Amino acid sequence: MGGACERARLPVVTFDVLVEVRLRPGIADPQGATIERSLTALGFVGVRDVRVGKAIRFTLDAPDEASARDQVTELCRRLLANPVMEDVDVTVAARSPATP
Amino acid sequence: MGGACERARLPVVTFDVLVEVRLRPGIADPQGATIERSLTALGFVGVRDVRVGKAIRFTLDAPDEASARDQVTELCRRLLANPVMEDVDVTVAARSPATP
Repeated sequence: MGGACERARLPVVTFDVLVEVRLRPGIADPQGATIERSLTALGFVGVRDVRVGKAIRFTLDAPDEASARDQVTELCRRLLANPVMEDVDVTVAARSPATP
Repeated sequence: MGGACERARLPVVTFDVLVEVRLRPGIADPQGATIERSLTALGFVGVRDVRVGKAIRFTLDAPDEASARDQVTELCRRLLANPVMEDVDVTVAARSPATP
């Protein structure tokens, strides 16, 4: 019961999180190279350096933005990205109360 | 030779383009569901609605931003995205002359 009270007192904010995982510069990107060749074949000249990464979006409940960022950094390290080959960009935005 | 003059007169700007392709709401996303289950199993509670999309980055030479956007819209339609199942977000930013 104490636990329930404790939980009820914690303010929880919902954050919209975007994690962009992309290959580090210098790592070969065959998917990007294929897209680049196809675009050139379709007549889109002037397209260069195509790189394909992942855009992972989710919502996260956390008490505040610092704690949300810490959690996202940790879950990138443990699951979403391979730090040897990939770079990560994290965007964390508190959802406004108007958007349920 | 006339062609070369013509080409020399055209101002060309380099744009950094980011195309985010994501599944439309309601379309099943097994990759996102798997990540969500794994994160929960790793102890990250409070993570919901995981969706995995593609983040495609490239550079594009175009005379101006409007023309760059038109080209990107067209190449999304013709190659990068499936409009039946996917939504697209396009970000186009002119590269500053300081960044070669």
